Amino acid sequence: MTAEIIAVGTELLLGDILNTNAQYLSRELADLGITVLHQHVIGDNAGRLAQLVEEAKSRSDLLVFSGGLGPTADDLTKETVAACYGDTLRFDAEEMEKIEDFYRRTGRKMPENNRKQAMVPVKGRKIPNHHGTAPGVWFEDEGGRCAVLMPGPPHELKAMWREGVRPLLAERTGGTLHSITLHVIGGESTLEAKGGKLFANENPTAAIYAKTGECHIRITARAKDVETAEVMCHQYAENFYALYGDAVYDEDVPGLEYTVVRLLAQKGWTAATAESCTGGLVAERMTRVPGSSGVFRFGFVTYANEAKEKLLGVSHEVLEAKGAVSPEVAAQMALGALKNGEADVAVALTGIAGPDGGTEEKPVGLVWVGAATKDGVWVKKLTLGSRDRESIRQRASQYALDLVRRLTAGLPLRHARALTAEEALAGDAALWAGPAPEGED
Amino acid sequence: MTAEIIAVGTELLLGDILNTNAQYLSRELADLGITVLHQHVIGDNAGRLAQLVEEAKSRSDLLVFSGGLGPTADDLTKETVAACYGDTLRFDAEEMEKIEDFYRRTGRKMPENNRKQAMVPVKGRKIPNHHGTAPGVWFEDEGGRCAVLMPGPPHELKAMWREGVRPLLAERTGGTLHSITLHVIGGESTLEAKGGKLFANENPTAAIYAKTGECHIRITARAKDVETAEVMCHQYAENFYALYGDAVYDEDVPGLEYTVVRLLAQKGWTAATAESCTGGLVAERMTRVPGSSGVFRFGFVTYANEAKEKLLGVSHEVLEAKGAVSPEVAAQMALGALKNGEADVAVALTGIAGPDGGTEEKPVGLVWVGAATKDGVWVKKLTLGSRDRESIRQRASQYALDLVRRLTAGLPLRHARALTAEEALAGDAALWAGPAPEGED
Repeated sequence: MTAEIIAVGTELLLGDILNTNAQYLSRELADLGITVLHQHVIGDNAGRLAQLVEEAKSRSDLLVFSGGLGPTADDLTKETVAACYGDTLRFDAEEMEKIEDFYRRTGRKMPENNRKQAMVPVKGRKIPNHHGTAPGVWFEDEGGRCAVLMPGPPHELKAMWREGVRPLLAERTGGTLHSITLHVIGGESTLEAKGGKLFANENPTAAIYAKTGECHIRITARAKDVETAEVMCHQYAENFYALYGDAVYDEDVPGLEYTVVRLLAQKGWTAATAESCTGGLVAERMTRVPGSSGVFRFGFVTYANEAKEKLLGVSHEVLEAKGAVSPEVAAQMALGALKNGEADVAVALTGIAGPDGGTEEKPVGLVWVGAATKDGVWVKKLTLGSRDRESIRQRASQYALDLVRRLTAGLPLRHARALTAEEALAGDAALWAGPAPEGED
Repeated sequence: MTAEIIAVGTELLLGDILNTNAQYLSRELADLGITVLHQHVIGDNAGRLAQLVEEAKSRSDLLVFSGGLGPTADDLTKETVAACYGDTLRFDAEEMEKIEDFYRRTGRKMPENNRKQAMVPVKGRKIPNHHGTAPGVWFEDEGGRCAVLMPGPPHELKAMWREGVRPLLAERTGGTLHSITLHVIGGESTLEAKGGKLFANENPTAAIYAKTGECHIRITARAKDVETAEVMCHQYAENFYALYGDAVYDEDVPGLEYTVVRLLAQKGWTAATAESCTGGLVAERMTRVPGSSGVFRFGFVTYANEAKEKLLGVSHEVLEAKGAVSPEVAAQMALGALKNGEADVAVALTGIAGPDGGTEEKPVGLVWVGAATKDGVWVKKLTLGSRDRESIRQRASQYALDLVRRLTAGLPLRHARALTAEEALAGDAALWAGPAPEGED
């Protein structure tokens, strides 16, 4: 089976937004064993769109559309594609009701042009949208050639794909595919080199994708039924667990914060955060997780030195002597958050996110991460230089969460130095003599 | 002048990499006043590529290629496009020397197939690559239709574009374009309906894009010189300022937090945050802005009721009587953050982000935003229901930042209710009688 992906939107042609849907759909179609021959982006122009659809339809069995389902006058995709597949549109009262309901619930007045979103195929079928107002549509001509239209916003498109489109296609392509994604702390080139031939297998396949402060390894197995494919995936995953050890933090999770919240809940622990350079990012990530109120209660954003003293009890003398970006301050911030945040584990960050404020001794990208439990204090030095402010903050938050994961799960802390609370509070430079603990893993 | 962008590479069709080159080239071409009709991604298949080139060439004056210039056997782009433009390739000793030199300097042995990269057009021209081994090439047929081929790695492509291709094109297009982007608080369909014919102008053009809790209006003017185009943009922008008033919060900024930090700095104010449902997101957004340490010092993430009492002094009785998600608690949180955060303006959020925890009286999506200055306290009710947790949190943070913007700039607060600090601290339900202030604007 062959397919083409067509994204509709002038904003894509103007470069205003990045076409991430094309990558997502390409990967998903590849998983289903469908060969993508072409990706297109085209503007909101009915004539050019119709021409493209005719061409693509003559080459490929399936056309997958993103965007162009909005309520505005320039959204003509649905009508145009319907005509190419010998279909027409009808008004659907049930969809209209859903759209009206959406506006009622959000307390807004529905603009009249929203009626357009309630139009669905006469011969084809509609695909429910549980995350927005525009339903998806599916057209099929007499020769069995199909087109599916999904909304442009990535979260709506992905949900509709998973819930409504992928199952339809899996049925048609025979055989089944199953995928799992391993989340691994570490850089792509290191992990890939270590993995070697594991990434060159035919079934299951394994592909590595670099993310911020971690990589994803996607394992996909093809089999006659889903149970067999699942077992194949998990068996193949064992190779990576054996190779990477506890750097693999989880499977199929939205992010490290989900794993951390789950581990904390399992252990009955609460966590607190004390943040300077990340400005609340670690707290924000923890509280992204539904149900995180069971494990997260207090977060301190201590951007100013006065805030570090007042909210966390960091010593004024230590701040003066060592500076805010120092292992001593990171340790005292963690201890302060543990105590004042009434937590079982606390994590603290202080660093220089840039672009300004760096010195030769303390360059942009230098971040000290501290962590504390009733058993002691740990500090870890990160050198994240030569990245931009946002990337430094994101990576620092990733290391902080990994520290919480390791302390909660009782895993070894690599490149972090342990000391007692008394030693940390003493703020004695001698404690920090010797080679600095550093490194990216 | 019209153009199409063609990215060549099977790895794009498999979804292994994201096509960021297309966005970059689209924006650059738009700035030159060149209309991009189509973006394509196609694999390393000479037959399909030749067909695509013929089609695209029949529609558009210029084809811009990325990728396919590598040394491997499957890179056939250069030969294929040469044939379509009636050109052939010749071996270029100077380029070969550069390639050999590159391998010498990096201490590696040159694979024999690298000779292929030294092939350049006979009739067209080569474009130097100062950041990699493969030179770019430029073809032009007898009718003046052109194609330019650049390497795929984004840093090589961008450098070659800036240094070698953009100057060539600027010469040909005469005239220039200039764009500005207005940032407007509000929903797309409402703003678009209000804007009406302003979005149907020919020069300058205006296009609206929906973002989370705001829209972007991109105004683009075409003129013989950049100064004239700039003046045209700003004159046209006046129409939107007149129409939307202070809902337009800025021009050409990365986000609302940048405007808020700038306004605070201008006024010499500091801001503090007290966050429950957003879990640190508002603080995180403020501190994204380089230099925000001058205006942001304290942030409180009070996810648990105990944290609201202990860090912000919210009354235990009011929490018991009204619940954490109430206007009284939002007001007291804001007052607590103002005082304990030693700030000139404070903003507080308490709400139900879901997916669980909603009741009939307090459904998912209900968020109370409080704000305080020395002059009083304001509360605002948001009903963000039927969205997912992440979207509720993002939108709530947007309203909170807008409240800070309005208080800092001395703008009217719509749909927010004002009371004195004493009234807010009294936590008297009678104060909150009457229709609840609500709405999305």
